[in-house]
Amino acid sequence: MYIDGLNCSRMTRDQLVTLRRARIGAVTTTCGFWEDATESLDAVAKWRHFAEDNADLVGIARTAADIRALAAEGRTALLLGFQNSSMLQGRLAYVDFFAEIGVRVVQLTYNIQNDVGGSCYEPVDSGLTRFGHEVVERMNRAGMVIDLSHVGNRTSLDAIAASGRPVAITHANCSDITDHPRNKPRAVLEAMAEGGGVIGVTTYHNLTRGFIETPAAWSEMVARTVDIAGIAHVGIGTDANVGGTDEYRAWMRSGRWSRRPQQGAGLATGAPSSGPPAWFGGPGDFPVLDEALRARGFSADETAQLMGGNWLRFYDEVLGVPAPAPVPEPALASGGE
Amino acid sequence: MYIDGLNCSRMTRDQLVTLRRARIGAVTTTCGFWEDATESLDAVAKWRHFAEDNADLVGIARTAADIRALAAEGRTALLLGFQNSSMLQGRLAYVDFFAEIGVRVVQLTYNIQNDVGGSCYEPVDSGLTRFGHEVVERMNRAGMVIDLSHVGNRTSLDAIAASGRPVAITHANCSDITDHPRNKPRAVLEAMAEGGGVIGVTTYHNLTRGFIETPAAWSEMVARTVDIAGIAHVGIGTDANVGGTDEYRAWMRSGRWSRRPQQGAGLATGAPSSGPPAWFGGPGDFPVLDEALRARGFSADETAQLMGGNWLRFYDEVLGVPAPAPVPEPALASGGE
Repeated sequence: MYIDGLNCSRMTRDQLVTLRRARIGAVTTTCGFWEDATESLDAVAKWRHFAEDNADLVGIARTAADIRALAAEGRTALLLGFQNSSMLQGRLAYVDFFAEIGVRVVQLTYNIQNDVGGSCYEPVDSGLTRFGHEVVERMNRAGMVIDLSHVGNRTSLDAIAASGRPVAITHANCSDITDHPRNKPRAVLEAMAEGGGVIGVTTYHNLTRGFIETPAAWSEMVARTVDIAGIAHVGIGTDANVGGTDEYRAWMRSGRWSRRPQQGAGLATGAPSSGPPAWFGGPGDFPVLDEALRARGFSADETAQLMGGNWLRFYDEVLGVPAPAPVPEPALASGGE
Repeated sequence: MYIDGLNCSRMTRDQLVTLRRARIGAVTTTCGFWEDATESLDAVAKWRHFAEDNADLVGIARTAADIRALAAEGRTALLLGFQNSSMLQGRLAYVDFFAEIGVRVVQLTYNIQNDVGGSCYEPVDSGLTRFGHEVVERMNRAGMVIDLSHVGNRTSLDAIAASGRPVAITHANCSDITDHPRNKPRAVLEAMAEGGGVIGVTTYHNLTRGFIETPAAWSEMVARTVDIAGIAHVGIGTDANVGGTDEYRAWMRSGRWSRRPQQGAGLATGAPSSGPPAWFGGPGDFPVLDEALRARGFSADETAQLMGGNWLRFYDEVLGVPAPAPVPEPALASGGE
């Protein structure tokens, strides 16, 4: 089964047909980047309606069992994801609400600091805050995937340490391989892997640079990632933006926090990007990635792990699987203000 | 004119009568601690209704001229303040909205980190974020008072440096005098004063400890604060909670971010607090503070500055006074994601 760890495509029925043709078993969507609680509810509603309108091709999955059941019916599983924890609007209780309505992947921060922690693009990374620790604990209990893709490195290490469950980096690369603030250093990948997590290696040209120019170069990048994180802890997370408009891209980059144009991953750091590759247009081209990995020398089993098996194992452990509640602490003495 | 830099009282008409009797010319209320945009609008509406229902005693002020006009009519000026920037809900544009509906004092963070910066109680202080810099700039342009009372020290120094206008610490003390995470170190007071700002020395027992036990001890604390910040940069900010209930106090302390009881200023750090003083119950006892400062040796002029003159001068410079817009930067090249 092929699994795309996360993308931000504005999905259409045509794209779903492409996913079926490419044998994509599951893909995590991006329902939002900056949205608050009400906007996030509306986003989930839109994705539900989309799934309902295309129920012959797709279904929303809350567990690994759902993914398998959908696959058996010849349908692609959609996992609902957000690239921010802004849906919580500062309420710890909202973790449970969003989990109960089927949200399964939540990235702790997007491109700026928030009440949970620091972002990869923020000049100073605060680390995981006290509220962030509360959120991680609740997400564990709710069986939500903690995504660290845009999260700062210090906050990522804190979250990995605080989490009682494996965590994901759904769409990034290793900065030891391609230097970019959006990519994660070796130390973070190792900590993530040690905790049982998975990194979705991306195909996004701004984060891969020269490694995306040919299938062989990309599979070389995957091989180096496997050397660092281990064969059981690497998958694919395209971060593809199929059907995205300039307006959508501007929304992603700037949100509502600044009137100054923000460059996101397009900021210049060293060697310029080669631009989107001709040979890979999105998850529809997963079969090409499969071939590239086999050509690189990965065995059939290893390739199956990388193409989706590792994600599925990770989902078996985390997705919708409630961690036990912690032992209650003795009540602290309350004071004044 | 007596001015209370900020308190968090649940005001009633009886309290307004007390304020008039004590000759309080202006007081900044706390409209909220954790409230998002809609809740903050509702809070402002409630305070407007309260002011309308007691229009013989009070009026909402947006400028120093308003304060003087109200004083001439024998009415107390209410300034609308919030102890958090959570009303913005991540939208830079909301700074202008709230300024235009009369909000005049906004504290950058309350007791936890947010998207603007770090809190005095957060183990790690991120400093002022990029969004925080945007907010400071907009608040300058809107003539809003930037309040640093619960803000982390690093974030405070960053905000003072970033602000083109004097800033306030409406309700705190100097931690060099009374050690407590809620109090500010000498370096912050000096930077604030250098920028033309004012610190409202508090009467809150958890932040003053032994210095609140007698009027003489409190005026000694004021004298030490004046030694550090300068006679022109010290006022009073009681942080009084007249009429506050346990439920209100619990809301202040914990908000919605944790189920674990939070102690706020009541956390134990060294010498325990002596408890609320018998001789001071709130802004109604300002005349006692006046006497204490005179007894300490402050001249009539100096006492008038400390009791309200410095705040009024600060309001002349900042309150509702728009700073000029910055020169637009050349448009940056936009990139991908």
